[in-house]
Amino acid sequence: MLPEDVLVSAIARAVGEPSGGVVLGIGDDAAVLDDGTVVSTDILVEGVHFDLGRTTPRDVGHRAATANLSDLAAMGARPVALLAAFGLPPGFDDAAGVAAGMREHGVPVAGGDLSRAPVLIVSVTALGRSDRPVRRSGGRPGDVLVVTGPLGGQAAAGYAGRVMPRTVEGCALAAVATAMIDLSDGIATDAARLARASGTGAVIELERLPRAPGATVEQAATGGEDYELLAALPSGTEAPVPVTIVGRLTEGGDVTMVDAVGVPQQLRGWDHFA
Amino acid sequence: MLPEDVLVSAIARAVGEPSGGVVLGIGDDAAVLDDGTVVSTDILVEGVHFDLGRTTPRDVGHRAATANLSDLAAMGARPVALLAAFGLPPGFDDAAGVAAGMREHGVPVAGGDLSRAPVLIVSVTALGRSDRPVRRSGGRPGDVLVVTGPLGGQAAAGYAGRVMPRTVEGCALAAVATAMIDLSDGIATDAARLARASGTGAVIELERLPRAPGATVEQAATGGEDYELLAALPSGTEAPVPVTIVGRLTEGGDVTMVDAVGVPQQLRGWDHFA
Repeated sequence: MLPEDVLVSAIARAVGEPSGGVVLGIGDDAAVLDDGTVVSTDILVEGVHFDLGRTTPRDVGHRAATANLSDLAAMGARPVALLAAFGLPPGFDDAAGVAAGMREHGVPVAGGDLSRAPVLIVSVTALGRSDRPVRRSGGRPGDVLVVTGPLGGQAAAGYAGRVMPRTVEGCALAAVATAMIDLSDGIATDAARLARASGTGAVIELERLPRAPGATVEQAATGGEDYELLAALPSGTEAPVPVTIVGRLTEGGDVTMVDAVGVPQQLRGWDHFA
Repeated sequence: MLPEDVLVSAIARAVGEPSGGVVLGIGDDAAVLDDGTVVSTDILVEGVHFDLGRTTPRDVGHRAATANLSDLAAMGARPVALLAAFGLPPGFDDAAGVAAGMREHGVPVAGGDLSRAPVLIVSVTALGRSDRPVRRSGGRPGDVLVVTGPLGGQAAAGYAGRVMPRTVEGCALAAVATAMIDLSDGIATDAARLARASGTGAVIELERLPRAPGATVEQAATGGEDYELLAALPSGTEAPVPVTIVGRLTEGGDVTMVDAVGVPQQLRGWDHFA
């Protein structure tokens, strides 16, 4: 596991099993409550996730919302509201710009909180709803793995442009997918997370990965922040939206990335935390 | 208005009116969705809200949850789940301790996110439910103002001890209150917020403020983080929980703090942001 996953496991142990109105807790893309509420939170930190010399406050807000809305999409949930907590450094005067960037997704920004902070902190929470949330854990050996679009675009572009979450695709795939995850840290990492949660292995065929313009195979496999969806579908399922088959779930716990002739390659996803 | 309130107004303009499934947006203690979901977010920043040399990670987590659960209490909502987004500085190894402190409130911690950060950041979101959320804006001239407990305790103690949110009291008062707010920034500031939202003035009688042990009148009026509730009740209402009458809402927009003989005093609440 990556350092972030180890920490998440320690926190999950500290807080114990889901209880009360929580039906799905730590360890998936989003939490699920017993009334169908699906909720996700993400934190972006200046100097870690973005550099204000290279991006605008509005783009930072857009991106923070994308990260959360993508988590909802990976559960097959439709978004209802966003909340924002900002830490504002001395001299930073465009909190309204960050909020305006969040608002561009068309989802209401319903509330938030402000504090001073040494660097710009943008912590966003997205609330949505789903009648049938799709977990990471429902995949079965033999399921095909599909992605919703080209990969490696953010890595190739230096993590600068805007990305839209796959909300429509996620809601459509929820009707047929056995498991789903969004590609925030690269398919090498995120496919392993889906397989581990499902108790399966996985094979990803690198040659099949749809590549964004300018992206190398390595960037397509390990670049973060593409926010495409990776779904497991029972073999033979017709996908309700355009997807590309990139591999399959297997028996056993190994996750391998193989080249065109089936030789395993060592590749590792992007760890925000390392 | 305090600097934080001015910024909040700018953000509210940037994001526009509540729409879709949001029935109450920016400007109250928490947001309200059309299915009765009530949600609040707060961000605590090391060096601004706490100092790790004087408090434990567990206490920081407890306090971050208190701030959010208090916001829910001020709406009369019962809590269902907490989410946590942590920014972790180099060398900090007790994220699980922060989460364990949150968990002590008995509310499930359902999910979260982690990042590196220059200082410890604890951004918590609380989700709850209410059939009849109480806004800040429903107060009417002539309503009496009541508080749920002693004030100034955190100011007197140097903002060190633990505070419990008034969840039971908030849910009970929701049946009778016309308006409610939690005292996070001191009654001088928060009473003015309630009165402004209600389109009224207010008079607070300083001699009536219940004081925590060791707290001065000034600390009771302006100290932050007590997390007692301030509710407006129609005159003559019998409160369902023990409260202390501290003043009343008035016609017109002025909010005055008066001494024992009715002379206005200049006092100002605590602004996390200034």
